[in-house]
Amino acid sequence: MRLPLFDLENLVVVLVRPRNPLNIGAAARAMTNFGSHRLRVVIPYRLAFREARSAVNAANVLKDAEEFQSIAEAVGDCALVVGTTAVRDRSLAQPPKSLDDNSSGLIRTALSTASVALLFGSEKIGLTNEDFSHCHWLMTIPTHRANISMNLGQSVAVCLYELSRSAKALTVEEKSEPATIEKTEQITECLFESLRLSGYVKPGTDKMFERKARQLILRMKLEAYDAKLLLGMVRQIVWKLREAEKNQRVTRSEEA
Amino acid sequence: MRLPLFDLENLVVVLVRPRNPLNIGAAARAMTNFGSHRLRVVIPYRLAFREARSAVNAANVLKDAEEFQSIAEAVGDCALVVGTTAVRDRSLAQPPKSLDDNSSGLIRTALSTASVALLFGSEKIGLTNEDFSHCHWLMTIPTHRANISMNLGQSVAVCLYELSRSAKALTVEEKSEPATIEKTEQITECLFESLRLSGYVKPGTDKMFERKARQLILRMKLEAYDAKLLLGMVRQIVWKLREAEKNQRVTRSEEA
Repeated sequence: MRLPLFDLENLVVVLVRPRNPLNIGAAARAMTNFGSHRLRVVIPYRLAFREARSAVNAANVLKDAEEFQSIAEAVGDCALVVGTTAVRDRSLAQPPKSLDDNSSGLIRTALSTASVALLFGSEKIGLTNEDFSHCHWLMTIPTHRANISMNLGQSVAVCLYELSRSAKALTVEEKSEPATIEKTEQITECLFESLRLSGYVKPGTDKMFERKARQLILRMKLEAYDAKLLLGMVRQIVWKLREAEKNQRVTRSEEA
Repeated sequence: MRLPLFDLENLVVVLVRPRNPLNIGAAARAMTNFGSHRLRVVIPYRLAFREARSAVNAANVLKDAEEFQSIAEAVGDCALVVGTTAVRDRSLAQPPKSLDDNSSGLIRTALSTASVALLFGSEKIGLTNEDFSHCHWLMTIPTHRANISMNLGQSVAVCLYELSRSAKALTVEEKSEPATIEKTEQITECLFESLRLSGYVKPGTDKMFERKARQLILRMKLEAYDAKLLLGMVRQIVWKLREAEKNQRVTRSEEA
């Protein structure tokens, strides 16, 4: 008896800076094997993307692929962002979860109510720390220590196989509407801006603090309602801090 | 906690009539990812096999691959022979088993005492009925009906992933230390104070907003580390907003 595959309609596969047209094609093909259709690419090597798309046997999923200039935009409508990585011992803020029943269960639960983005890095270097900061958590395929680095198309195939295979009953579905990344990213921007305006961020450490702020907000796992509330708050704080800065400048110029 | 992979030392991967050097290389690479070393090819297209082997990045597993002129010879020392196929409804003597916990359990049990051959057919036509006749049973990767035919390298990767992964699902051990209420309350106070200073809180609604802020912070279910981080941030913001207020008062009194 074959149980139906788990529906991956809500899954968004995001290839970040892919370089090789064969790999892009292979990822797209693996998606069609497991009923996944939504492919997005972030800053692909132009030539590679064009070549992959124009291949005679290119899957529709590849022809319909959307292109973005940043991860934030590419995952804007997703409620959960999971990054894949082969790295295990780099000083990651959060150790990656193994691809297994538990991690795929978490993703499936999220998929049942919202879009979930699964990020794959470039063939050469994978995802960077900056990329990681956009992810709620990281996932790694358990591999042999002799070679932990997997081919891109094969990684996509293995992850989608695990996600789509018939699991037993889903973990009880939590009735909640998670915040979209678009909203959490707006909160991150405002929080970072108020940290900058209040002198918390030292010059030259901007990038690090922005990542820190983003990760903090993501770990809060905000509901849509709370995200809206928090965004209103930080917006008002930013406005006030800007006013104060403006007044100070005026005062200084008057004193001068 | 990561359990070690299941030992695939006794597994023999057999590629039957492979045609494409890239696919042969990809299969070999996937094997190294999952700790499998014994590759055999049956009547490969000569040129393809030679090309795959001489690729600069060819895995050792490919360099050590053995070549045979028949399946019978290639699986001669194995105690179990399993053929992979995408075909499900061809009039097969035995319907294939799904790749899942059960089928991989059967293979693992055999692997613990003897060599097991896993056969993959050519990219074009897969394994033939003649090939099937050498197999104890057949196995198929559960795929979407839209595209049941998988890429060779990806099939190898998915099968070896399933065979090597630790059978029992791990209980994900979440190493976490929740924030104390003392800390979350301090955050609430600072957040409320910055909301007050920035004009978010309208006069007469203090109590309601304080409750709102507290509930929001509690719903974040902060870890101890994050609570400390967030408290540092909001404290700095409060300090800056107070400075601004003070300056404004000074300015006003100077103007008066």
